[in-house]
Amino acid sequence: MILSFFTRQFNFFDRFEEQVSHAVEAARFFKEVVAQDRVSEEMLSKMAQIEHQGDNVAHTIIEQLNKTFITPFDREDIHTLAKELDDITDMINNIVSRLRVYDITGVDKNLVEFAAVIEQSVRAVARAVGGLRHIKNVRVVFDACVEVNRLENVGDMMRDRMLAELFTTAKDPIVVLKWKDIYQDAETVLDVCEDVVHVVDSIMVKQA
Amino acid sequence: MILSFFTRQFNFFDRFEEQVSHAVEAARFFKEVVAQDRVSEEMLSKMAQIEHQGDNVAHTIIEQLNKTFITPFDREDIHTLAKELDDITDMINNIVSRLRVYDITGVDKNLVEFAAVIEQSVRAVARAVGGLRHIKNVRVVFDACVEVNRLENVGDMMRDRMLAELFTTAKDPIVVLKWKDIYQDAETVLDVCEDVVHVVDSIMVKQA
Amino acid sequence: MILSFFTRQFNFFDRFEEQVSHAVEAARFFKEVVAQDRVSEEMLSKMAQIEHQGDNVAHTIIEQLNKTFITPFDREDIHTLAKELDDITDMINNIVSRLRVYDITGVDKNLVEFAAVIEQSVRAVARAVGGLRHIKNVRVVFDACVEVNRLENVGDMMRDRMLAELFTTAKDPIVVLKWKDIYQDAETVLDVCEDVVHVVDSIMVKQA
Repeated sequence: MILSFFTRQFNFFDRFEEQVSHAVEAARFFKEVVAQDRVSEEMLSKMAQIEHQGDNVAHTIIEQLNKTFITPFDREDIHTLAKELDDITDMINNIVSRLRVYDITGVDKNLVEFAAVIEQSVRAVARAVGGLRHIKNVRVVFDACVEVNRLENVGDMMRDRMLAELFTTAKDPIVVLKWKDIYQDAETVLDVCEDVVHVVDSIMVKQA
Repeated sequence: MILSFFTRQFNFFDRFEEQVSHAVEAARFFKEVVAQDRVSEEMLSKMAQIEHQGDNVAHTIIEQLNKTFITPFDREDIHTLAKELDDITDMINNIVSRLRVYDITGVDKNLVEFAAVIEQSVRAVARAVGGLRHIKNVRVVFDACVEVNRLENVGDMMRDRMLAELFTTAKDPIVVLKWKDIYQDAETVLDVCEDVVHVVDSIMVKQA
Repeated sequence: MILSFFTRQFNFFDRFEEQVSHAVEAARFFKEVVAQDRVSEEMLSKMAQIEHQGDNVAHTIIEQLNKTFITPFDREDIHTLAKELDDITDMINNIVSRLRVYDITGVDKNLVEFAAVIEQSVRAVARAVGGLRHIKNVRVVFDACVEVNRLENVGDMMRDRMLAELFTTAKDPIVVLKWKDIYQDAETVLDVCEDVVHVVDSIMVKQA
C-alpha cells in the first residue's frame, strides 16, 4: 500500500493526527468556556495557547511539504488540509476572544448547544483524518464525513432559529449585533469542519 | 480539437451546463421571491431544493474528477469551477433564508433592482460556461465575461448607494443591521459570478 | 541560478514588484486619507485609480501565466501571489469607500494608528516580494515575513482593544455598527499581508 511507505520519514499522517488533536482540544475546552459565567483572562490564554500549538503543527507540515519531493497524497490536498484544520482551531479561538471583547456574561443556552454540536463535529473530523492513514478505513472515514455534513445542516438550522429568536425578543440593538456575530461564528466552525472532510473525502477517492 | 474528445465518457461540459442551469433557476426564482410581500414556507423549500440539486451536480463533478485520469481542462480549474458555481446558488439561497430569518415583509425596490442585476449576471455566466465546450466560442465567452465584470461594478455602486441611503434614512438600528446584511449578500452573488468567469476566462486562454 | 533565467522574457519578478508598489501606494495614501476630516470625492477617485492600476498588473500576470509554459516558480504560487497582492489594495480601497458610504467625519485616532501599522506591514510585504528575485536575499525575505506576522498579531490586539472600547463607550448602535466594520476591515488588511508572505515564504523554501 503506497500509504504505508512513508513511516520512517517525516510522517504526514502523524502530524495531521497531532494537528486535529489540537482542534479536538479546542472544541472540548470551548464547551468548558461557554459553561462559565464569563471568559476569564486564564481561559483566554489557555485557548490562545491551544491555537498556537495547532498553528505550529500546521507550519511544520507546510514547511516539510515544501521540502519533500514525494508525498503520500496530493501536495495540494496536504496544503489545504493543514490550512483548514488550522482554521477550525482559529475560529474557535476567535469566538472565545469575541466573548471577551464583547464582554459577554452569563451562560447562554444557545451557545452551550452550539458548543456541543461543534465538539461532535470536530471529533468526527478527527475520525476522518485519523482514518486517512490506510485505505482499509474507507468506511470509518466515509461515515465520519457523512456525520460532519449532517452536523453542518444541524448548525445551519440552529443558527437560523437562534437569529430569528434574537431578532424577535432582543430589544437592545447592541445585544442583537453581538449575538448575531457569535452565532454566526459558531456556525462557521461547522462550515470549516465540512470543508475539511471534503478534502479528506477527495483524498480517499483518489487513493481508491 | 481536444475539447470534443470526451463526449462519450463522463462529460464535464454537460455537467457544468447542468450545474449552471440550477444557478440560473435560482436567480430566476429569486426575482420571483423578492416581488412577493414575504418569503413563504413554500418558497423557502423550493429555493432549498434548487440549491440541493445544484449541490448534487457539483458533487458528481468532483467525484468524477477524482476518478478521472484525463480531463478536458486543468483538474484544478474543474474543481474551482464546480465549487464556485455552487457558491452562486448557495449565496442566493442564503439571502432567501435571511429574508425569512429576519422576518422581512413588504417589497423592497432596492432588492428588486438587485435581483434583476443578479439574474442578468447569472445568465451571462451561463453563456460563458456553455461556451467552454468549444474554442470557436471564444468571442461569446469573452463577451459574457466582460458583461459579468461590468455587472459586478454596477452591483458595487448599487450596494454603496443603498447603504448610504439606509444609514441616512433608517431610524431603527435593527433595520439598518438587517438590510446591511441583505444588500451585502446581494452584492456578494455578483462577486461570485465574477470569480466564476475568471476561471472560465483562464480556461479559454489556456486552450487558445 | 534558475531565478535569473527569465530576465529577457516576461518578467514575473518585475511585475510582482510593480504590483506591490501599487499596494504600498494604497497604504501610503490611506494614511493621508485618515488624517483628513472626511473622504472627499477626489480621494475616492484617487484610491479607486490606485486599485485599478494594481488590478491591471494582476490581470497581466495571470494572463501571462496562462500563456507561459515555464515559470520561475510554481504556477499555483504565481497565481496566488498575484491574487493576494491584489486583495491588499482591494481591501484598502474598500475601507476608503466604506468611510464615504458611512459618511464618517472627523479624524479617528484609532484608524490613524491602524493606518500606520498597515503601511509598515505593506512595506514589509514589498521587501519580501522584492527579495524573491534571488535566493541570496533569503535573510531579507525571512525578516520581512517575520515582521508581517508580528504586525498581524499587533493588529489583532489593536482591533480587540478598539472594539472593546467601542462597545463600552459608544451609546449609538449605528456608530458601533459602522466602526465595528471599519476596524474589522483594517485588521483584515493585515491578515491579507500575512497570507501574502506565507506564499512568499513557501516559494523561498522550495527554491532553497
